[in-house]
Amino acid sequence: MLPEPPQCTFASDNTSGASPEVLEALCGANEGYSIAYGDDRHTSDLRTAMNALFDREVSTFLAWGGTGANIVGLQALIRPWQGVICTQSSHINVDECGAPERFLGSKLIDVPSPNAKLSAAQISDQLGVLGVVHHVQPGAVSITQSTEYGTVYSVKELKEIVDVAHQAGLRVHMDGARIANAAVALGCDVASFTSEVGIDILSFGGTKNGMVYGEAIIVFDPSLSEAVEYLQKQSAQLPSKMRFIAAQFLAMLNDDLWLDQARHANEMAALLSERISSISEVTITQPTQANAVFATLPKEAISRLQEWTPFYTWEGDNEVRWMTSFSTKASDVEILAEGIKTVLGE
Amino acid sequence: MLPEPPQCTFASDNTSGASPEVLEALCGANEGYSIAYGDDRHTSDLRTAMNALFDREVSTFLAWGGTGANIVGLQALIRPWQGVICTQSSHINVDECGAPERFLGSKLIDVPSPNAKLSAAQISDQLGVLGVVHHVQPGAVSITQSTEYGTVYSVKELKEIVDVAHQAGLRVHMDGARIANAAVALGCDVASFTSEVGIDILSFGGTKNGMVYGEAIIVFDPSLSEAVEYLQKQSAQLPSKMRFIAAQFLAMLNDDLWLDQARHANEMAALLSERISSISEVTITQPTQANAVFATLPKEAISRLQEWTPFYTWEGDNEVRWMTSFSTKASDVEILAEGIKTVLGE
Amino acid sequence: MLPEPPQCTFASDNTSGASPEVLEALCGANEGYSIAYGDDRHTSDLRTAMNALFDREVSTFLAWGGTGANIVGLQALIRPWQGVICTQSSHINVDECGAPERFLGSKLIDVPSPNAKLSAAQISDQLGVLGVVHHVQPGAVSITQSTEYGTVYSVKELKEIVDVAHQAGLRVHMDGARIANAAVALGCDVASFTSEVGIDILSFGGTKNGMVYGEAIIVFDPSLSEAVEYLQKQSAQLPSKMRFIAAQFLAMLNDDLWLDQARHANEMAALLSERISSISEVTITQPTQANAVFATLPKEAISRLQEWTPFYTWEGDNEVRWMTSFSTKASDVEILAEGIKTVLGE
Amino acid sequence: MLPEPPQCTFASDNTSGASPEVLEALCGANEGYSIAYGDDRHTSDLRTAMNALFDREVSTFLAWGGTGANIVGLQALIRPWQGVICTQSSHINVDECGAPERFLGSKLIDVPSPNAKLSAAQISDQLGVLGVVHHVQPGAVSITQSTEYGTVYSVKELKEIVDVAHQAGLRVHMDGARIANAAVALGCDVASFTSEVGIDILSFGGTKNGMVYGEAIIVFDPSLSEAVEYLQKQSAQLPSKMRFIAAQFLAMLNDDLWLDQARHANEMAALLSERISSISEVTITQPTQANAVFATLPKEAISRLQEWTPFYTWEGDNEVRWMTSFSTKASDVEILAEGIKTVLGE
Repeated sequence: MLPEPPQCTFASDNTSGASPEVLEALCGANEGYSIAYGDDRHTSDLRTAMNALFDREVSTFLAWGGTGANIVGLQALIRPWQGVICTQSSHINVDECGAPERFLGSKLIDVPSPNAKLSAAQISDQLGVLGVVHHVQPGAVSITQSTEYGTVYSVKELKEIVDVAHQAGLRVHMDGARIANAAVALGCDVASFTSEVGIDILSFGGTKNGMVYGEAIIVFDPSLSEAVEYLQKQSAQLPSKMRFIAAQFLAMLNDDLWLDQARHANEMAALLSERISSISEVTITQPTQANAVFATLPKEAISRLQEWTPFYTWEGDNEVRWMTSFSTKASDVEILAEGIKTVLGE
Repeated sequence: MLPEPPQCTFASDNTSGASPEVLEALCGANEGYSIAYGDDRHTSDLRTAMNALFDREVSTFLAWGGTGANIVGLQALIRPWQGVICTQSSHINVDECGAPERFLGSKLIDVPSPNAKLSAAQISDQLGVLGVVHHVQPGAVSITQSTEYGTVYSVKELKEIVDVAHQAGLRVHMDGARIANAAVALGCDVASFTSEVGIDILSFGGTKNGMVYGEAIIVFDPSLSEAVEYLQKQSAQLPSKMRFIAAQFLAMLNDDLWLDQARHANEMAALLSERISSISEVTITQPTQANAVFATLPKEAISRLQEWTPFYTWEGDNEVRWMTSFSTKASDVEILAEGIKTVLGE
Repeated sequence: MLPEPPQCTFASDNTSGASPEVLEALCGANEGYSIAYGDDRHTSDLRTAMNALFDREVSTFLAWGGTGANIVGLQALIRPWQGVICTQSSHINVDECGAPERFLGSKLIDVPSPNAKLSAAQISDQLGVLGVVHHVQPGAVSITQSTEYGTVYSVKELKEIVDVAHQAGLRVHMDGARIANAAVALGCDVASFTSEVGIDILSFGGTKNGMVYGEAIIVFDPSLSEAVEYLQKQSAQLPSKMRFIAAQFLAMLNDDLWLDQARHANEMAALLSERISSISEVTITQPTQANAVFATLPKEAISRLQEWTPFYTWEGDNEVRWMTSFSTKASDVEILAEGIKTVLGE
Repeated sequence: MLPEPPQCTFASDNTSGASPEVLEALCGANEGYSIAYGDDRHTSDLRTAMNALFDREVSTFLAWGGTGANIVGLQALIRPWQGVICTQSSHINVDECGAPERFLGSKLIDVPSPNAKLSAAQISDQLGVLGVVHHVQPGAVSITQSTEYGTVYSVKELKEIVDVAHQAGLRVHMDGARIANAAVALGCDVASFTSEVGIDILSFGGTKNGMVYGEAIIVFDPSLSEAVEYLQKQSAQLPSKMRFIAAQFLAMLNDDLWLDQARHANEMAALLSERISSISEVTITQPTQANAVFATLPKEAISRLQEWTPFYTWEGDNEVRWMTSFSTKASDVEILAEGIKTVLGE
């Protein structure tokens, strides 16, 4: 018989609320009056903090959500006759209801990838059409770090991608909705796999890592900043009371809270992966490098488990995704593992 | 000599933070786990509350900000070869960096209006091109209530507008970023000047009236709801942790807090208007019906006052706008009035 | 040693000029004065002729070129959050520089197809996301008849496609840039595989079959006509001196010239296919059903042949496409076949 | 009693067909085979001829129609957050069904102008919003030469416009659908009021001056050429059998046929203007500088005349526009003048 279901859900990391430090900071920003749209003390402080984090001058813009951050950044990188190379499973390709095509007025050049990672070779393969007026011109590459499958690009892989892209005149965008999970997984500071490998624009995620709302757009190439400024407003991604987002991010950066929260999420995924990897009817389908566990198990078992606690199936008919977050409890992971074993009769 | 400047600013109603009740509700929504994108208890409760407020079934969608709410609603009302009739001074026309044209792929048919109100006759004047393929076809009307000039449409004026629009097959959108201020000014319930006059889609503002962030899109015509659902996602206006917006709105609707806050803002504007109306070099240029005071005064006086406390000049060279909010203190209004008198030597 | 190269080129059917009858008709339309944009006698006559051709009332619009006809028709079929299912090798997907994504503001849902034909099953496979707001909603299907690979859908295949699409609420668009070649290949009248199977909008090609310029958009569902009218103008596809296109089409429809010209083109492709099919190093890769021959041959042979007469390689490294047209001479086909044999030492 | 109506119509210059030389050239281009999309001898020759005409290297692109040429050129000049300053009566603003807003994804900043001419001062007036993220940024100016009201900018006026625009970082586009009429009116070569005053991109009209179809996009700033190349294809404005347009333009440039034809059109307008200027109930409302006559006359007279021969009324209730073309006969002008007198009882 199945135990009581876990108190948290493994459906997505955005089912969690916000961490107490973040909420406190948001409330703390409520005092007094600030000119809207970023001309406030908190946003100014955050810009300084981001410069420190990347150890160089960057342009920091604060947007509402992940799709918004992505489409503003991407618009700054290309013109309408240019397309964006990405994986078929990328969030921009499958989970944004066509927002990129709508805002860019162009095509996503999506290539298949079994682990949601793009390779430098796949980019090269797309460059043959450069200069031919009949074809959408590859103009940018967008990669997700950590990926939609919970995998993580190594610094070496990123360098290869950026090199092949830049040599061909393409820009590189990183969707970092879960960049904290990648930073923890790689064990190196965030600049080493973003600005230092040559990423042009980064969506720096906040929401999935324990903020109420808010994402940052980090522009490393100063020549792109002006475009981002106007595109953000025109794309309806410019929050008026911006101080409330800035304050949350300041709380996240303070004492590396953002890394601590992501570390916990990654550890919970690793724990789950470890607990279920020996079950004979379960196959872990992706390396558990960040805060997601992908696995296949019999369809009937999936149905029974979903009645017990909500989570999503993935591409394949019998593949599931379990996400962990900053607030996932180890005890809940144990309950989920227990439930899986129970259903599979182990 | 000028007194100490006011503690609040009169630059805009979005320079205020959030009211304590709203902040408490936001924090209260942080417990536990909720499926994202609106499939949560708070959003469900808010939908019920909105049905009650309008005394009929409406479709309630929660978006990030005012521009986002406007462009989602407008997209649902027209096809790309159709334009939106609005006033030249409307927010969608001058303050959204072309977002409407970008999202609609069409023209705003902007007509001059000395008081930021559109008339039924002005709509009629635009209908001559209907059926002529060379011209953008008027497809919707967008009106702002209360207006960008702090004026308020009467129920009769709204009925005339909706009638002339609907008879010609045009839809009607209301930008209600400051709808609470209008409701208080009119002294009647919100349904009586929205759903009951035939408005098709309403942007129901939260931010300017004391929320941290969040606006509602209220769809009165059920046949439009499906379009809004997808357009909201595609336009990057679908918040993931939606419960935090729903909770704020619930706090606003509770015990008519939203009306109380708007009433205070309106009263502060009336107080300011009253205090300065007798100054000989000051001319109040718009009836003070909501939470804005527009006035002309000598340019040198404007400059001196702006050095003392921030606010914006408007269209004319020597016209200024002072906005009040739920948190504006009467004492600050007195200080501002005092400052104006001082600078003008009265 | 290679013979003298052919006088015509096999690079594309659009390398030909116009047939004498067409040119004569164009010149004949030059007399007198006509109100522009279609309010002329020739266009009126053509509309009558199209009604007769399809044996029912249809709406006929005349556009400049094939991409224009396609993007106008497709726009009328979907809203921006809806995508168009098509094959990866479709003209709209690879040869229009992103025009469909640009005009539609949406995604092409492109699926792989070895013979450039879409199947009903492939459409079914895409319907699982219907109703899920995060994903682009399949809203229309676009098929090319005859296809980009010179293959032809049977009436039965088309019926299956339309049925599965219509049952799910999707519209069906046919790119008929080479519809005459399909009609000849199928040996049945054009209505039997367009209006009668339920196609909603058809791009009826003229240019590739021997017109100077001009394509028709045939709208079978009267409820879509108004949208097409405005979209055509807004998309810059409304010719002013429209009589010159109408006159060409009238010449084409007269005495079935359009079918005779396409029949010749198809026969020339069949002749070429027949002549080279027995060469051991040549593999015909697609059934030669219309006016294209696709074949693989050694890379070195391709290079030598391209120096001798221009034509294009295709997807694969050693695959080539030879197109025939109304004006291709049998003697030129023999010369091409001869050249291929010579280069391959047969 | 009214005489027999004129054989030609004065409704528009696009009611005429093509001149014999143009038609002959089109037919002459029909021989043999040419690679499509501009890689042909005629297009190459035209590019050389355009370089000679402007006495410098220019980039020449051939598009289908006037709206297409305008929207391709304008797209190359601005990014989506930038708008185009133009007059309220400009063709792009009122006669293209929103095509510019659709393709540009932005606003036309339209300013009133009694004679359809924009002034440098009007441009300056729009520059105050530069740098303010909430407002559409003026990014380009578009002027029409000769204008929609048959007036002509002097070289001095153009210099002032370009200077104020370029100094503020704005680009300048010229809609030259009737550039030949302007060249004749100014009596100077076309370079002197286009490339030499600093126009960035020119729509060089062909259709209204006696071609079957076809307009040229002349790009004077080489840095903009690459964008135009792709935008033309993506905007569905790239003709496949381009030689047929090139051949027509070559015929026009040969022995200054384009100027001769425009000169005749201008003379016919001048003749009409002269003949009716003394009628007491007729007021010529615009200087007759090109091939249009604008006049007011009593409404009843307009109705009677329109039943006799077709032409359009304009903005005002009792204002009419009569257009002349390369093929307007002096005898028809005399008949029109006679008819007007008859109706007005003179």
